[in-house]
Amino acid sequence: MSTQPDTYTRILEAARDLIYASSYADVGVQAICEKAEVKKGSFYHFFPSKQELTLAVIDNYYEGLKDSILREAFSASLSPAERFQKLFELTIARQELIHQQTGHVLGCPFGNLATELATSDEAIRCKIEGLFGRLQELMRETLVEAVAREKIEDLDIDATAEGMFAYFEGVMLLAKTKNDPAVLRKLLPATAQLRIHNIN
Amino acid sequence: MSTQPDTYTRILEAARDLIYASSYADVGVQAICEKAEVKKGSFYHFFPSKQELTLAVIDNYYEGLKDSILREAFSASLSPAERFQKLFELTIARQELIHQQTGHVLGCPFGNLATELATSDEAIRCKIEGLFGRLQELMRETLVEAVAREKIEDLDIDATAEGMFAYFEGVMLLAKTKNDPAVLRKLLPATAQLRIHNIN
Repeated sequence: MSTQPDTYTRILEAARDLIYASSYADVGVQAICEKAEVKKGSFYHFFPSKQELTLAVIDNYYEGLKDSILREAFSASLSPAERFQKLFELTIARQELIHQQTGHVLGCPFGNLATELATSDEAIRCKIEGLFGRLQELMRETLVEAVAREKIEDLDIDATAEGMFAYFEGVMLLAKTKNDPAVLRKLLPATAQLRIHNIN
Repeated sequence: MSTQPDTYTRILEAARDLIYASSYADVGVQAICEKAEVKKGSFYHFFPSKQELTLAVIDNYYEGLKDSILREAFSASLSPAERFQKLFELTIARQELIHQQTGHVLGCPFGNLATELATSDEAIRCKIEGLFGRLQELMRETLVEAVAREKIEDLDIDATAEGMFAYFEGVMLLAKTKNDPAVLRKLLPATAQLRIHNIN
């Protein structure tokens, strides 16, 4: 039996957790190998560069989100309002748990990496822009249903979905900066109330 | 005549511009000294550590903002609505100019540093939390005036000001991630429309 998949996963998850807890630049190959309990040779076998590792980390993080918060929140069995509420509840609960465990609000892993690397690594910036587009699309689809049910008029749906996503990211950034999960509890639910109207 | 103030300022401004263009971790003492055209000895004379330099850079950036965008936008001669509009216009114009000059939307210098360093440098996190509080207070005072003029009812003014600030930061983050100043033009003006109501 090959142990390769296991080694690959250990490296990936070690890198993901270390980068999320601090930053891309702050985490070296040495620290990843120590946490993953692998030799440096193994690291470079699977990930010839830190950029390739980080692109895989971003995918891994997104898959984890899809299988947990996103699946539960954006369920067809929930009304649009319930979907948004579930998204906020699960996000707050996760950040509160992380804060209890680490002493820090870590915020959005994608927003963190985008802010750090958008100007210096175009591949990573594009990757995160793509994921942001998918997250924003989930909000947009929910909003379209909400508009149909509630007969909201003159709403610029695309701008509102993008604005909701921006607000969500901004609240995460603020909670991280204040290192206070209460910011999320106070502000995140207002995401669903955001409205950008068509200018006629 | 001493040349010390000049050397100090050259180092500070070189560091400020380099960090803003990439990230804290990406900028080394060597690069700062080259850009500022000073010797490493001078650097360590004025700034014994990179943390001290960065705290000074943050102050320098805030002073610059106070003397330009903030002074012009939060003028007593403007109505609350005009103040918000001026803030958005000047912010968009600055980011568009930076984008033209560098090819990148650089976003909010404070939000960038907070996202990168909040979990690893408590002094820098606290510094930025304090500045965020001052910026949020400018929004809150403007909002208080707007509420008095427009007789908006049941508004949670503190939460709305904090939400406005979060939204502003989120839009900056999104524009940086998409590397597109048009995001600012589309979304930033909605900051002033954000409303978080009291739950009774």
